Amino acid sequence: MAFSERVARLKSSLIREILAAAQRPEVMSFAGGLPAEPMLPKVEWDAMPASMGQYGTSEGEPALREAIAAEARALGVPCDASQVLIVSGSQQTLDLASKLFIDPGTEVLLEAPTYLAALQAFQLFGADCIAVPQESDGPQLDALRQRLENHKPAFAYLIPTFQNPSAVRYSEAKRDAVAALLDEFGVTLIEDEPYRELVFDGGSATPIVSRLKKASWIYTGTVSKTLLPGLRIGYLIATPDLYPYLLRLKQSADLHTNRIGQWQALQWLGSEKYRGHLAELRDFYRIRRDAMQAVLAEHFSDLAEWQIPQGGLFFWLTLKKPLDTRTLLAPALAQNVAFMPGEPFFIDPDAHPGHLRLNFSHVAPERLSEGLKRLAEVIRQAQAS
Amino acid sequence: MAFSERVARLKSSLIREILAAAQRPEVMSFAGGLPAEPMLPKVEWDAMPASMGQYGTSEGEPALREAIAAEARALGVPCDASQVLIVSGSQQTLDLASKLFIDPGTEVLLEAPTYLAALQAFQLFGADCIAVPQESDGPQLDALRQRLENHKPAFAYLIPTFQNPSAVRYSEAKRDAVAALLDEFGVTLIEDEPYRELVFDGGSATPIVSRLKKASWIYTGTVSKTLLPGLRIGYLIATPDLYPYLLRLKQSADLHTNRIGQWQALQWLGSEKYRGHLAELRDFYRIRRDAMQAVLAEHFSDLAEWQIPQGGLFFWLTLKKPLDTRTLLAPALAQNVAFMPGEPFFIDPDAHPGHLRLNFSHVAPERLSEGLKRLAEVIRQAQAS
Repeated sequence: MAFSERVARLKSSLIREILAAAQRPEVMSFAGGLPAEPMLPKVEWDAMPASMGQYGTSEGEPALREAIAAEARALGVPCDASQVLIVSGSQQTLDLASKLFIDPGTEVLLEAPTYLAALQAFQLFGADCIAVPQESDGPQLDALRQRLENHKPAFAYLIPTFQNPSAVRYSEAKRDAVAALLDEFGVTLIEDEPYRELVFDGGSATPIVSRLKKASWIYTGTVSKTLLPGLRIGYLIATPDLYPYLLRLKQSADLHTNRIGQWQALQWLGSEKYRGHLAELRDFYRIRRDAMQAVLAEHFSDLAEWQIPQGGLFFWLTLKKPLDTRTLLAPALAQNVAFMPGEPFFIDPDAHPGHLRLNFSHVAPERLSEGLKRLAEVIRQAQAS
Repeated sequence: MAFSERVARLKSSLIREILAAAQRPEVMSFAGGLPAEPMLPKVEWDAMPASMGQYGTSEGEPALREAIAAEARALGVPCDASQVLIVSGSQQTLDLASKLFIDPGTEVLLEAPTYLAALQAFQLFGADCIAVPQESDGPQLDALRQRLENHKPAFAYLIPTFQNPSAVRYSEAKRDAVAALLDEFGVTLIEDEPYRELVFDGGSATPIVSRLKKASWIYTGTVSKTLLPGLRIGYLIATPDLYPYLLRLKQSADLHTNRIGQWQALQWLGSEKYRGHLAELRDFYRIRRDAMQAVLAEHFSDLAEWQIPQGGLFFWLTLKKPLDTRTLLAPALAQNVAFMPGEPFFIDPDAHPGHLRLNFSHVAPERLSEGLKRLAEVIRQAQAS
């Protein structure tokens, strides 16, 4: 069978395999990024017009595009509805952007670590990935400037707000500095913000795209973390030089995004009901985050270091004695515990041993302590042997 | 801005532009392939479990995969649920297959004419398209053999049942002959069957994939023509040598298909309610087809030739005095009539003037005569000048 060249770059997805193993009910899974089941809101369908069953436009429902543009403008993103494209989950933004920009050997700039499924999507299309190390308040600026001086990336892909996996939120100063650098070198920014609304402190910072003066950009978001992931409703907002191409690529990919999910999302966006739901979500996840922090302090203080995440769904642990955490998966699963090894989130996994990504939204509080105790024991045994 | 090479192959979609123009309520549109609004079934959502709001698997809902495999087996397609992948409308099958097989210059074999959006998807990825002329009962077999002897296509993409645009249904003999040829040359078949259930006579013929003995295959279908296109629920069934790659490409494209649409589709597939709805659909469209045939006979007998379609949604007219039907679009729209020119359905449009694709499902019967009379007049004027 003669496949395309890109199939050789199609990686077996570690995440998918771990999630499959973690499906067994007895497994305490810190691996995924699933919303907590009790926090999935009850939705109503009775008022949906029958016309939502008909074919729709590739751009998406006009009223939903208006609502998303209004929310983005409130964050300082200069845009109108004509720049909004409804996508089948924000993962599709990565597919469309890959098609728009990436030939084999095209350079793209990423954070280290970065979102695994983005890395895999870009690599599938043959990207030559260049990494900028992430610090606790955003990318190392010297390294970013050096990469921009020595390379010609088609775009920079950044997750500045509660990044998956590192939970880092860029400071105001770094957001300004990154925007200035991208403007200076004329590099397009793809800014991915699934976790913006899952914030547990008072802080907030406007998107980097709102700080750009010259560079082109794509800003992408989703309702998957705040409403219902099963709807598969995401969006992108793009500068007018990019939008027409993304629209045609969207049409070729799947004609248009499902309209029933678009209609449901529209019932929530910008509503009082949604604001109330988001407040409940933040309270719920803050309590789970605090519970996780307490148990981690008990079992992991001697093993690892971490920042307390101010938003998002993950703790990012750095082992004091690094080892390849992929080797911990089998013994952890044997103890009915699942987690995400840190290595696959880097372009060069073998050069970055010793990180674990732990989700705090999914495991029920009564099983938290037992799960983390078992995981700590697995690490201790591996380090001892 | 440096885009990927494939962007240069991204065609402006004539269909999208025509459909946009045809949105105006005063336009009598024979252009699209939209189901008739009155035949969109009323659907219920009350019984949908809350869990459908959560993330799902890339493969799709297990019960839906089982139901689709059972229907396919009833058609003679040898398969089980593990070979079924739920996709975001069958357009996504074309995107996934393109990713699996097509590098720039990869040869693929198509019917002439073929489905426009498939042609565009394959060309976007750089396919070198090879065409086999379509006859009234399927492809010219001599031409097919000659193409297979002289080329090494990665796959053959065929629409054997009420093809869009030509409405051709392959005969039993040609289905057997095509299967034998693909087996002989070891060429993978992609068989696209959106219109199988929209049949207006007693005839039926099993899929070509059920007749293959050796060649690999992908069989793809959708609920868009029989239930609700707005759900964006399609499926593919693939031989086990192809399935794992298609699954990983699906995951990279959009993680998984929306679950609410999957749940709704499952309420219908294989049910008594669905069989009743399909029977009503066939009656409704048969009446519209017959009405269209009567009006065409009145206004187009001197202008064109055509077969009466035994299924699907289209008449395919061949002008007795060929001209580039793309030049008719503007004058037709000036008369508030929209149609699809035939040229874009061919790899080499300029070599195939003189076809029109006319949809019979959408225009209300009371406007049919006036619409087709105006279109005939536009053609007469163009031929006179």
